[in-house]
Parts: sequence; structure tokens; C-alpha cells
Amino acid sequence: MKNVLVGQSGGPTAVINASLYGVIKESMDQPAMGEVYGMLNGIEGFINGHTVCLSQLLSNNELELLKATPAAFLGSCRYKLPENLEDPIYPLLFEKFEEMDIGWVFYIGGNDSMDTVAKLSGYAAKVGSDIRLIGIPKTIDNDLVLTDHTPGYGSAAKFVATAVRDICMDSQVYNTTSVTIVEIMGRNAGWLTAASVLARLYPGANPALIYLPEVPFSVDGFFRDIEAEMEKRGNVVVCVSEGVRDDNNILLCEYAQQIAEDTFGHKNLTGCGKQLENMIRAKYGVKTRSVELNVTQRCMASLVSETDLTEAVAAGVHGVNAALNGETGKMIACHRAEENIYQLGYQCVDVSLVCNQEKAFPKEWIIGRNNDISEEFIDYAMPLIAGELPRLMRDGLPAYCCLDTKTLRLR
Amino acid sequence: MKNVLVGQSGGPTAVINASLYGVIKESMDQPAMGEVYGMLNGIEGFINGHTVCLSQLLSNNELELLKATPAAFLGSCRYKLPENLEDPIYPLLFEKFEEMDIGWVFYIGGNDSMDTVAKLSGYAAKVGSDIRLIGIPKTIDNDLVLTDHTPGYGSAAKFVATAVRDICMDSQVYNTTSVTIVEIMGRNAGWLTAASVLARLYPGANPALIYLPEVPFSVDGFFRDIEAEMEKRGNVVVCVSEGVRDDNNILLCEYAQQIAEDTFGHKNLTGCGKQLENMIRAKYGVKTRSVELNVTQRCMASLVSETDLTEAVAAGVHGVNAALNGETGKMIACHRAEENIYQLGYQCVDVSLVCNQEKAFPKEWIIGRNNDISEEFIDYAMPLIAGELPRLMRDGLPAYCCLDTKTLRLR
Repeated sequence: MKNVLVGQSGGPTAVINASLYGVIKESMDQPAMGEVYGMLNGIEGFINGHTVCLSQLLSNNELELLKATPAAFLGSCRYKLPENLEDPIYPLLFEKFEEMDIGWVFYIGGNDSMDTVAKLSGYAAKVGSDIRLIGIPKTIDNDLVLTDHTPGYGSAAKFVATAVRDICMDSQVYNTTSVTIVEIMGRNAGWLTAASVLARLYPGANPALIYLPEVPFSVDGFFRDIEAEMEKRGNVVVCVSEGVRDDNNILLCEYAQQIAEDTFGHKNLTGCGKQLENMIRAKYGVKTRSVELNVTQRCMASLVSETDLTEAVAAGVHGVNAALNGETGKMIACHRAEENIYQLGYQCVDVSLVCNQEKAFPKEWIIGRNNDISEEFIDYAMPLIAGELPRLMRDGLPAYCCLDTKTLRLR
Repeated sequence: MKNVLVGQSGGPTAVINASLYGVIKESMDQPAMGEVYGMLNGIEGFINGHTVCLSQLLSNNELELLKATPAAFLGSCRYKLPENLEDPIYPLLFEKFEEMDIGWVFYIGGNDSMDTVAKLSGYAAKVGSDIRLIGIPKTIDNDLVLTDHTPGYGSAAKFVATAVRDICMDSQVYNTTSVTIVEIMGRNAGWLTAASVLARLYPGANPALIYLPEVPFSVDGFFRDIEAEMEKRGNVVVCVSEGVRDDNNILLCEYAQQIAEDTFGHKNLTGCGKQLENMIRAKYGVKTRSVELNVTQRCMASLVSETDLTEAVAAGVHGVNAALNGETGKMIACHRAEENIYQLGYQCVDVSLVCNQEKAFPKEWIIGRNNDISEEFIDYAMPLIAGELPRLMRDGLPAYCCLDTKTLRLR
């Protein structure tokens, strides 16, 4: 009987552990599957021999706690396998798989992580290995192609919409003119920033202006929009993606500062909200504030969407079943039935078609003077943020399941 | 039969409307009291004739929704009445009170707002008016004197502890060295920053270092602390008050930028977290991030503490009863029974002893090398963050009660 290996990779989300829960639980329920091992810190940790036996570590109670725990229980990595499948890392990895008698590998992550699954399954095909490799999608950015949406997005969108609604409430307590800029994550894809439209408490309510990275951002146009809104209402709330760029493809945050790049060549963004705050204050002299939602939008588990968590678990479960059915080199994708009632199915898509691709927010859903979001998006997003779950609390704070990666004990 | 007048002032909190609910509900239940009027935008709006009749506006259902609504339903102001009670504003205000047949005035706010209550009650005594004026305390800063704690603090502390716990989870997913700086509100008082100690999931867990404004902040000491922590653990989380100052009383955030002052002479702070982030990155070259919790810590109603909300309502109710008993020029204060079981009583304190004072965090509760918080604080704070309430949701997002201050209709 072969064993199972599971890893987590890329940026954490509020429900990535729910997918891990799905993989562990379903694998343990499958008579054909042996022990369930976890890679610590993804494929990078696995290369260095860091694993833990999850099926022996976690009781049922602890598994339930794991499901409600944010961030990556197993730790994560941002590690890119070599392009060349002749690289000696590949036989090394497969020797390790053999040593642990692994039959199935599940890798939970975003488009960079799917690159890992694609390369490993490419190598498996090349050497005739029958190890099955499946990608389980997760990202708050919702930018994976070939899937209706991605587990992790619904909870992040619910957090963004809730936080922006509360910030709008806060912004309008004084009878003055003010501008509040909320900066939302999303390097290239505006899905999460778009979710701020859901924050509107009534038609015409704040946030008044929403800017996505899919269309060029013009500073002049922004000033014109702000002036129009300041005439209409005293307090203007603006939601802006961290990744907005001007006509020349220059990031707004580059206007003020040097930027660094991460190992995947991503630009390390900060401060487009701060940048706009300073520009508005200098030009109009009004009270101005910027709020960067920062990591809270991906890590705060208190506002998890019930739909998202349920689907994150299901993605893990479907991954296990797909692998048992002989699938490999696939990612589990979400398929929405074209009906009035929201209904989600799961299917396998070729992981090599997903990796390193980014699904942009549809331009036709960006309306107004490129400063608002359409009803079509609202219809798309509402089911994804639906439902709340009872929170597991201890002494007034959320209870979580944590792994000490040194001792391999829970704490 | 005299009418009631109630206003809100200063920065909003997640439960300031719960105190408003307490005042309205209890006043409406009192046969001796007539209509309940609200000042729009506090005393400043009242001077300009902006009021609304709350007892006619709000149904029972809407009152329940109001109780769970963050920010200030009536709008707020930061308006300081003149020191000189001979100023013509005072007879003008009391004429307006007479016109509306006001017998009781309730003002919900922090130390600046208590200054308003002190001046109005001082003027009432001077001219022999029998209008009763009572202050209902609110602040996330917990810096009011003569009260065990202040409504608004418990919910903000619960948000800070929860957010920091989740940020700590997020910060440790990568097997690298990293420093995360969390900047927490509190110009002069460290109460809210201290609440980050509650975030520790197990003994020795992050946040590793906590800095309050009550003791001088030394950059050299900070580097020494960071170096010690980087040796102990890969990922270091630091919580720091926005108001930390060095030996020369220079705000850390002043190191980098010019700052403005608000009408109360408060310094308009931003960026001490960003400042420390830049210093750490420049010195050690490690992955560094700063997170400013910003207004989310005072406005997010999803993490309200049940204890705090209950006490905020009770403070409003006790204010009404105190006024009916003839008290005036008083603030409702919280008194904790000196017993093992948490039990809170309410009493009246002279508002002139409260206004313009700030209760600092006790220095003896700051331990380590001025970088940690003692068990005594944990014992003090735990009851204040206890309990959760069922959230009132609509379409996956919180439902709130909002007033259109132009039409005076709900929306």
C-alpha cells in the first residue's frame, strides 16, 4: 500500500489548511492509501528531508481545529524547480518519493506552485513513474485560469468587503471633506480590489471610486474623479489595487521609491495608497488618510466565508479521488453550473495549462470612467462570500492548530 | 415633561453606538423623559441647529441593528468649547436647550468630549440651570482616569489580539529569517499595543517584542532586542505603538517626516512601523514587512467583545439613571470588584477630574528590557475581550443602521 505526500506552497490564505484537511481526511478514509506525510515548507523543505507523518500526528479534534486555522500549517516556500528536466534535482526528488513509498503527491498552491506540479509530472512521464501528482488550487488573488474561481478568494473578498464597509462607516463620522484611500492586494489581477464594490451599504454609498490594475491608471483622471466625488459627498472612499500602473506601465508606487524583486521576479510593492494620499493632500489640502489592508486580508480567519471553506475542503477531497482514479499532472478546477442557483462542480484540468498564467479581471466588468465595477461581478462574487461559520474560540481569541517544525509536535 | 439630548464625539469605536442604544432605550423606558433628540456631529452640529428625533426615528428592530453598528451613528466632531465661560456660545447653547425643552444631556466620548461636558455643566452651575449633563465614556485608547477601563477598549483589544495572532501565523510560514512590525494605535497610552501580548498562542510564541510609548524607545536597544530574537527564532514579530518616542521625546515617526497637528494639538502620526521596517531592512538585509492596523482596529465590528458591548450599553443606561437621580457634571465610570470573578459596577465621577487627563499604562506592567508585558496586564485584560455575539448579516456582510444626515432618514 502506497503512502500519500502533501505540501503547501506560495502565500498563505485563511482556508489553505481547509484544503489540507480535505486531503488528509479523504486519504485516511481511503483503504488504498497508507500513511499521509506532509512536506515541511513545500518542495524546498522536502528536498532537505523535512517531512512529518500527519496521519499519526493529528487526532480528529485536531483535524477540526486545523480546518479553521489560517496560514500554512505545514509551512510554505517560494521555490522554483529548474526548467531543465535533466537537472539532477529530479531523480533526487523521485528517489525520496520511492524511499517513502509515495504513490500520490498533492500540492496546494497558486500558479507558481502549479509550475512545480507540472514539472514533477513532466518528469514522472519522462521516466515512466506511476506516482500521481495533483495540484489543489489556492490563492486570494483569484487569478488562476481554467477555474471559475479559486479557494481562498471568497474569504479574502469577504474580509475586504467587510473591512471596507467598516472603514466607510468610520470615514464619514465627521462633517468635513475627507478622502480615504484603501490599498488592496493584487499585483496584476484586480479581483480582490473589485470585491470592495460589495462593501456599498446602499446604492451610491462609498466606496465611491475603485481602481484595478487591468486598465491604465491616470493621475489626471484620478484627480478629476476625486473632484467630482468631493462635490457629491463630503467623505470620499477610494479603493485601489497595489498594482495600478500608468500609461507607460510604471507602477504608481514606483513614483516614490526604489523597489525590490522577489525570487519569482515579482515586484515587491508597497505604498501606492500612501502615494495617492500624499498627492491628494498636497493638491487639495483636505483631510486624507490611507489604509493598507496588508496581510490581514489574507490571514484573518475570523471572517472566513462558509462557502469558501467548504469548497476548499472539497477541492482537497476531489484531488484525492482524482488521483485514485489515475489522474496525474492535473489541477482541480471549479466549474459553476450556468443556472440561477449557485452550484459548484469540480473537474480536472491540465496543470501545464494553468501554471504561470494569470487570469485578469474582465475589462468589460470595469465600468464608469474605469473607476467602478459592474453588476455582473457582484452576481459572480456574492455566492463566494456567503455564509459564516461558528468560530472556535479559547479565552476570547481564536483557537488554532500549530506545528512546531523543529520537534514535529503540535502546540 | 422634559426631553433628552444625546451626542457622540471624538474618534468612533465599534461600540459607541451600543452606548447610544443604551441611552435611547433607557430614556424611552423612563416615564419622566419625553422625546430623545440626537445632536448630529456632536456639539458642533448642535450649535448649527442639526438635530434628529431618535425616539420617533428608530423602531425596535432598528435599535437592535444600531447596537451592532460601528462608528458614530449621529456623526462626530472634534470641537473644543471656549475656556472662558463668558463666551457668548454658552448662552446660545442653553437657549437652544430651552427651545427644545431639554432636561438631560448625554455626551458619549473620550477625554476631549468630557471637557465639553465639564464646561457645559460649569456654565449650567454658573447660571443656575437645572439641565443635567452626563458624560458616557468611550475610547479605544483606554486612557480615561478614574475608571477601571473604558467601553470601546475591550473590542479594540480583541481585534488587535486576534489580528496580531493571525499576522503571527502568517509571518512564520516561510523557513527564512524575517521581521514583521505591527504598528498599533495609541498616541500617548500603550493600552492597545499591550493587548498584542494576548495574541501569543503558546508561551514564547510571537509577538516577541512589544514597545509602548510610556517608556523611552531606544533604537540601539531595539536593534539589540531584534538580534537576540533573530537568534532564537526565524520569524520575529514586533508590536509597536504609533506613539513611541526616544530619550529626547522625539517621536520615532518624526525621524522621517514633517508632521501636522489636529485642532486639539495632537500630532498626526503615521509610519513608525514603516520607519522601523526600513531601519531593519537597511541594517540586516532580512525580509521585513510592516503592517499598520490603522482604523480597522477601531472600526471593525465583526470582532466585538460581548463583554465590551454589554458594558457599553450599561454605561448608557447608568448615565440615564444617574441623570434622573439628579447627578450632573459627572462621567459614568467602571468599577471592578476586587474578587476572583470578574464583576463590574458603575459609578459617577466628577467629569472635571477626567477631562484632559490621560491614564498611562502602568510602568510596572512593562517588563523585560522594556519590551514585554506582564501577567498582571493579561489578568486585567482577559475579561474585557471575553465573549462573542451572533453577527447580524445580510448577503454575507454585516448589516448596519445608517442615518442620512441630509434627509434625516435611515438607509
